[in-house]
Amino acid sequence: MPAQPPRSPSQLGAMFGATTAATFLNLPAATIAEGAKANIAVFGAATATPYPSVGAYCAGAPRAIRDGIANWAAARDHIDFDLGGRMLPDGVTAVDCGDLAIDPEDAAANRAKITAAARTLIAGGAVPVVLGGDDSVPIPLFQAFEGRGPFTVLQVDAHIDWRDEVQGIRLGLSSTMRRASEMGWIERILQIGARGTGSARVADFEDARAAGVTFVTGREVAMHGISAALDAIPEGTDLLITIDCDGLDPTVIPGVIGPAPGGLTYWQTVELLQGAALRAPIAAFDIVEFMPERDIQQQGALVAARLVANAIGLIARQRFQSKDE
Amino acid sequence: MPAQPPRSPSQLGAMFGATTAATFLNLPAATIAEGAKANIAVFGAATATPYPSVGAYCAGAPRAIRDGIANWAAARDHIDFDLGGRMLPDGVTAVDCGDLAIDPEDAAANRAKITAAARTLIAGGAVPVVLGGDDSVPIPLFQAFEGRGPFTVLQVDAHIDWRDEVQGIRLGLSSTMRRASEMGWIERILQIGARGTGSARVADFEDARAAGVTFVTGREVAMHGISAALDAIPEGTDLLITIDCDGLDPTVIPGVIGPAPGGLTYWQTVELLQGAALRAPIAAFDIVEFMPERDIQQQGALVAARLVANAIGLIARQRFQSKDE
Amino acid sequence: MPAQPPRSPSQLGAMFGATTAATFLNLPAATIAEGAKANIAVFGAATATPYPSVGAYCAGAPRAIRDGIANWAAARDHIDFDLGGRMLPDGVTAVDCGDLAIDPEDAAANRAKITAAARTLIAGGAVPVVLGGDDSVPIPLFQAFEGRGPFTVLQVDAHIDWRDEVQGIRLGLSSTMRRASEMGWIERILQIGARGTGSARVADFEDARAAGVTFVTGREVAMHGISAALDAIPEGTDLLITIDCDGLDPTVIPGVIGPAPGGLTYWQTVELLQGAALRAPIAAFDIVEFMPERDIQQQGALVAARLVANAIGLIARQRFQSKDE
Amino acid sequence: MPAQPPRSPSQLGAMFGATTAATFLNLPAATIAEGAKANIAVFGAATATPYPSVGAYCAGAPRAIRDGIANWAAARDHIDFDLGGRMLPDGVTAVDCGDLAIDPEDAAANRAKITAAARTLIAGGAVPVVLGGDDSVPIPLFQAFEGRGPFTVLQVDAHIDWRDEVQGIRLGLSSTMRRASEMGWIERILQIGARGTGSARVADFEDARAAGVTFVTGREVAMHGISAALDAIPEGTDLLITIDCDGLDPTVIPGVIGPAPGGLTYWQTVELLQGAALRAPIAAFDIVEFMPERDIQQQGALVAARLVANAIGLIARQRFQSKDE
Amino acid sequence: MPAQPPRSPSQLGAMFGATTAATFLNLPAATIAEGAKANIAVFGAATATPYPSVGAYCAGAPRAIRDGIANWAAARDHIDFDLGGRMLPDGVTAVDCGDLAIDPEDAAANRAKITAAARTLIAGGAVPVVLGGDDSVPIPLFQAFEGRGPFTVLQVDAHIDWRDEVQGIRLGLSSTMRRASEMGWIERILQIGARGTGSARVADFEDARAAGVTFVTGREVAMHGISAALDAIPEGTDLLITIDCDGLDPTVIPGVIGPAPGGLTYWQTVELLQGAALRAPIAAFDIVEFMPERDIQQQGALVAARLVANAIGLIARQRFQSKDE
Amino acid sequence: MPAQPPRSPSQLGAMFGATTAATFLNLPAATIAEGAKANIAVFGAATATPYPSVGAYCAGAPRAIRDGIANWAAARDHIDFDLGGRMLPDGVTAVDCGDLAIDPEDAAANRAKITAAARTLIAGGAVPVVLGGDDSVPIPLFQAFEGRGPFTVLQVDAHIDWRDEVQGIRLGLSSTMRRASEMGWIERILQIGARGTGSARVADFEDARAAGVTFVTGREVAMHGISAALDAIPEGTDLLITIDCDGLDPTVIPGVIGPAPGGLTYWQTVELLQGAALRAPIAAFDIVEFMPERDIQQQGALVAARLVANAIGLIARQRFQSKDE
Repeated sequence: MPAQPPRSPSQLGAMFGATTAATFLNLPAATIAEGAKANIAVFGAATATPYPSVGAYCAGAPRAIRDGIANWAAARDHIDFDLGGRMLPDGVTAVDCGDLAIDPEDAAANRAKITAAARTLIAGGAVPVVLGGDDSVPIPLFQAFEGRGPFTVLQVDAHIDWRDEVQGIRLGLSSTMRRASEMGWIERILQIGARGTGSARVADFEDARAAGVTFVTGREVAMHGISAALDAIPEGTDLLITIDCDGLDPTVIPGVIGPAPGGLTYWQTVELLQGAALRAPIAAFDIVEFMPERDIQQQGALVAARLVANAIGLIARQRFQSKDE
Repeated sequence: MPAQPPRSPSQLGAMFGATTAATFLNLPAATIAEGAKANIAVFGAATATPYPSVGAYCAGAPRAIRDGIANWAAARDHIDFDLGGRMLPDGVTAVDCGDLAIDPEDAAANRAKITAAARTLIAGGAVPVVLGGDDSVPIPLFQAFEGRGPFTVLQVDAHIDWRDEVQGIRLGLSSTMRRASEMGWIERILQIGARGTGSARVADFEDARAAGVTFVTGREVAMHGISAALDAIPEGTDLLITIDCDGLDPTVIPGVIGPAPGGLTYWQTVELLQGAALRAPIAAFDIVEFMPERDIQQQGALVAARLVANAIGLIARQRFQSKDE
Repeated sequence: MPAQPPRSPSQLGAMFGATTAATFLNLPAATIAEGAKANIAVFGAATATPYPSVGAYCAGAPRAIRDGIANWAAARDHIDFDLGGRMLPDGVTAVDCGDLAIDPEDAAANRAKITAAARTLIAGGAVPVVLGGDDSVPIPLFQAFEGRGPFTVLQVDAHIDWRDEVQGIRLGLSSTMRRASEMGWIERILQIGARGTGSARVADFEDARAAGVTFVTGREVAMHGISAALDAIPEGTDLLITIDCDGLDPTVIPGVIGPAPGGLTYWQTVELLQGAALRAPIAAFDIVEFMPERDIQQQGALVAARLVANAIGLIARQRFQSKDE
Repeated sequence: MPAQPPRSPSQLGAMFGATTAATFLNLPAATIAEGAKANIAVFGAATATPYPSVGAYCAGAPRAIRDGIANWAAARDHIDFDLGGRMLPDGVTAVDCGDLAIDPEDAAANRAKITAAARTLIAGGAVPVVLGGDDSVPIPLFQAFEGRGPFTVLQVDAHIDWRDEVQGIRLGLSSTMRRASEMGWIERILQIGARGTGSARVADFEDARAAGVTFVTGREVAMHGISAALDAIPEGTDLLITIDCDGLDPTVIPGVIGPAPGGLTYWQTVELLQGAALRAPIAAFDIVEFMPERDIQQQGALVAARLVANAIGLIARQRFQSKDE
Repeated sequence: MPAQPPRSPSQLGAMFGATTAATFLNLPAATIAEGAKANIAVFGAATATPYPSVGAYCAGAPRAIRDGIANWAAARDHIDFDLGGRMLPDGVTAVDCGDLAIDPEDAAANRAKITAAARTLIAGGAVPVVLGGDDSVPIPLFQAFEGRGPFTVLQVDAHIDWRDEVQGIRLGLSSTMRRASEMGWIERILQIGARGTGSARVADFEDARAAGVTFVTGREVAMHGISAALDAIPEGTDLLITIDCDGLDPTVIPGVIGPAPGGLTYWQTVELLQGAALRAPIAAFDIVEFMPERDIQQQGALVAARLVANAIGLIARQRFQSKDE
Repeated sequence: MPAQPPRSPSQLGAMFGATTAATFLNLPAATIAEGAKANIAVFGAATATPYPSVGAYCAGAPRAIRDGIANWAAARDHIDFDLGGRMLPDGVTAVDCGDLAIDPEDAAANRAKITAAARTLIAGGAVPVVLGGDDSVPIPLFQAFEGRGPFTVLQVDAHIDWRDEVQGIRLGLSSTMRRASEMGWIERILQIGARGTGSARVADFEDARAAGVTFVTGREVAMHGISAALDAIPEGTDLLITIDCDGLDPTVIPGVIGPAPGGLTYWQTVELLQGAALRAPIAAFDIVEFMPERDIQQQGALVAARLVANAIGLIARQRFQSKDE
């Protein structure tokens, strides 16, 4: 038999009846204003406040995450076995508002856009699902919840992100959790997955502990599973969930700038999302720090996209039930 | 010290006394007719019924799996610690019958060849071990067992494969389990590893449930281990074991067309094979959907080959004991 | 937004304030003689006794391991969450003595250099931490402990390394554990991670068993965790720890010559080191068989370097406490 | 030192400042009518429909369960570490309505009283917490929910209780789950803990399966923990939880008529209650089949009472949160 | 309501339709000669070679074990959830041959009777299931297998029983495993559950190790589960299973002479039996060292009887399948 | 066969060659002054500061614990499988100094005697192993370490014991940990096993948290094992280990005044002791709150005694090694 040349991705996709998806899993496209009328609204934010020395190194992530799952877009309404049913139950609406017009040179404008977009969605009753972007993106996202709450931040990350400033910048990716701790509407912070070394100077860690942060380290997750983290989620306080892709193991998502061995597995992360959804309403979800240039065969993009799909499915189930009752 | 240039694979292989193996682990080469006189007979089948849109995208797999373990061919009679001894106990014979002459343009002929080869082996008392090929290969393989049985199909796969037809084709890789359910000599079907989305339309899944299929999802394996699957294997019913490489995690076997995060680990799969071998005789084993073009440094090829080696060792032990008793 | 070009590694490193590290994590550089005055002294050994057919195929490893963690050098005194504090507590000194001048053509000289360097360090009270090189390096390293002891060798490896000779060479990488068993100052040998096939002829394995070696196979670690290995460590006997990178899973450290699926995870290896450090003093640590040419995006180099960092941190804690008491 | 005579229970209780409690943990006493105004209302039911051959053999249970925890009544507002806080958060009210006037000779009247009491409580917004009584008690309790729902029954029991009739009686303790399956307002039934032999004739078990019951056997709980049961609880459907004391292991609650080794542990049962409370509102809770005559040193009474305390605390947290939102 | 007097056991039994069973679970009564025609034959042996200082302290055990499960005799053909079906599949016969006529004063005669009874059963094709008696009973039972084999002894016990003699007696309960090791037809011995101190002098333990015994201690079972024991069972060698009741935890079977905390749970023991039955045919089963005088509310008697029921069910399944094939 | 009357305990003991032991496991008897010359010295303390309302309700415990293991005294030098060897390695000495002359009416004198006895032992280099007594005993025991340290207290208990006073008494059993927190030589407190309700008023718990106590609740131990507790033990700080018998599960030690379901198992407690011994020297060990009147068939006494034997064996190994090095 003559050797078969490998088919191109589009040929493979065609088998499943799929094409490259313009939106996440071919969800309906929408403006932010239209998104506010949906139950769930996805949007991308390439960065917020990049450090000049590295720039917006995750700028390609929103597109790469959508592409990573494009082959499965035609299967969007099939059973998702991780969710135990279709991602979107009947009657729940989800849309993709595309990417905000980010300019790496104008951090203040970026932050304003992110906060404004999220505020519009929240005001309309939609839950924002944000595709970052580096880890400076959650700061203006959290800002959008001012005047509401109280909230619990649930972060997955290899690093603690408690620097007060880096290179004179106080709103960059190494300061995210310290800034969150200063927002009055955020009552509690859980940080999951810290391991190895990183930005954690001793004094920063002590500040975090003094501020009442609960840490569940990567080693604790490896030894005891995700339940210690789940036990720390207070019921009845809405959740702001933020996933830094380096919180997962580098074998699972290779495409990150600061890999650290010993991270969460796919199932530990899914179990965390599912357990969190049982305990409290998810008010926002973001995934950041995916760096497509370092991905391998789109493996990490697919994992990131699957986490987004799980998050959408869980939020949809929360909304659906609250309508019913 | 001057830098050492990396050695070529053949140099490395030479260290272990190995050369590229023409057959799986340098087992004796044989025709199918000769293979029928052995206890175990390996053969390759590049495809059976490919979908025109993607073609025989796994055609290179039989060769790639043999190559993936070629460096260890000289160690074939050393201790295999996964099996707790040599792969082939004294007195058990295993051969490699090479690859069937497959023509991607003539699916009917392919199926006839696969069924005929397997029937010849079975009639002679040999257990067929088949290197696919895409997931259309098991259909004609199962067909070869008509008139025998009853059998239990034990499938590992990320997807359920219960489409009735795709693109007008009813014997393609998305329909394998539905076709198996229609064979009178197959009494029971266990499907292990379903996760994420795939071909599983709600109606297909309901059909599978109605047909009495036992599903152990990827999440269940992750949370509870493989024992739930093992408990569902009826003792005394011969097993047809079929491993779709995407049933394993993409980090373990990257080279698949439809990767889904959260798959089985190497040890979970080995434990499944070992536990299955304790419970019932293995009547056939196949491994499909390995796509060499997407493999990374032959990692997946080695894993696939190690699963074949484990299967051969387990079948050998079943045969050896039954001779004794 | 215009696409952002990916930044070079040095730009990324700059973000963390790091530059390419000339020494491991920017530890002070030192000669071997100076290293003897430190508590812990790192040095590299590109090979000891290479087989002519493959040569010094790990010669690039000492440099690659240092490079793999270079981006985190500026974070050396931050909290290391795997260790629960800074790698080096106040008052403990660690240095990097660079690489020995190895000549792949002169194995006898290499062995003499390795033994001499280690003896100098030990005599001064420093614990040697050795960056191999292939698995022939531990033989002259163990030789340096003649006249001391007794010692327990704790090996992590996919293979048992009990050949008496290969190609006429008795001090090569396949004979390491047999040679160790012949050293009078080595009282006990634990070998962890054996799996698949390798050099283990039946007679070699029987010799190892007769010599009293305790084996904990890869499968046992997968099923029961690392505790079975820890239970076998006698308290009060100093440890010589030797990590062959293929003892870890190929998905965790891809860059090895003889990969075998089913190896230890990062956490299992760290847990082994931590548990060993609780039970007995670590007299020496080496990591061998890292092959940079087969690494993927420096993933394996980072893991190897993190294991070295963990080992240094654990030795530091043992030393620090003994000073105190 | 002269021997000290053992103190009487009342002396011991006095140390904790406790006396024999007239009500469960000294909750305020109330009539059923008054109980309807509380959030949670406890009442006892000595039996409903006893089999004449054995009579109301659990008639003493309501009193024995209250006595089993009487020593801790003064600690009712201390931290309950199993709940992570005080049993009753501020603002939640719970009362004990005492025991219904049961007459073992008049089953019809008993059933009417139980149904009426529960209906009164439900109508007022109180959640009934019922101290049985044998396993005939839940039938009239479930009856009280007619016209509401849909509900899921979550049963813990060593036996499946699917007899259609025993000794001509269709509403006795061996028929509870079959009767539940016939109530239109009960949508789903989960039965946890079946083990050994009992009333389960093959045909009865097949009827249960055909009716869609999910079984998680005692062996499955032992091997995989309680999560398989939790996964089967549909969110958004109110729960009727019924605990047969023989569902727990006889070493934990010795006082049962039909002990079966291999039952749930205390923590597995608590974890089941906590996990259930996360997934769906608890509409009623009962505990049955406690037989004081076979208890040992009040061990089983204490366990039963602790399960009641956990249930009250969980219901209180559900109520408290729903008030807030 | 007037208090209900507790019912007598016979009244309770009557509810289940059960009466005191003359035979184990009301199996047909038979002579030993008749038993030889069945598939499985139960008989009791009050002792074999008692130590004079303690006498036949387990003489009441055969009766107590039968009584312990008498209430469930009417349920014998119901589903046994531990076995996943009825204890006896259609077509398998099991009988109870009653108790041998043991005389505590004539050990030689006792041993001869036990060996003869077992030989008669084996010759006829029946598998003996023996209710001891103290731990001297297995010695003449094993003797009955002379001329057959090879066999593996699988022992569960808190103590190792390797004394050469005690009080001049070489065939007593402390010497059972040493005597087994001297029988040529016994190829391998696995001893599970050793813990605390007991008869194990250092020299005795070293003799056992030198004889090739595999020990899996109580601590290893607690930490790793029963799988380490199962891995040591060679396939294809028939099993002689002997359960000393003190191998289980004293909370599970309180009635033993030498209790030791930390023993096997009910499920670990059942899992051991099930796993053993998967790996090799069970040639004989005995349970010894149950001491009714120290039992608590028949808890231990029920556990012992349930283990016997599990053993019968597993042997029945092995026989049934071998008939079929 | 005529029924055998049950033998008396002394007859049973005789079988093992044991007699009632006057000292713990027949260790040599000694005065406190003589004990100071041994490595390990046991003594009993019936109470220290009893509450008048309950008196010295554990006064019988020292004798009951010795009696509980008396049958095994002749086996003291046999292998203890929980320790992996003989309790006392050659060259380590342990004695039993009997019971202090306690007077329940004179608490001040009791405390002085306990402190003095412990001080004498410590001064001589012996490690005190104390058989309480109620939970007031550890207070004067800890007092004996004034001027040494720093120490970590490792407590196992169902209750937190942080009352400031009870009935005007500040040194009673409910205040033990608060008093420990006030001793300058105690640097850290770990409390393991809290569950259910008890003395823990909200303010007391907050005081403990503010004082830096680490709590690992009973639920956490049940879900995650003992490792979370072990991770909190600082290396290099000597340990004062205090076991309240109600920290274990009531099924394991029934004889306590304040039972709480869900306590530690025997193995969890042993694993805690073994893990603690790996991490830091044990400076003192006590076991308190055993109440013989509520024991069942000496089950709890045996467990308590086995914990003492484990503690002695672990201390012996620490001493033995420190001598060697």
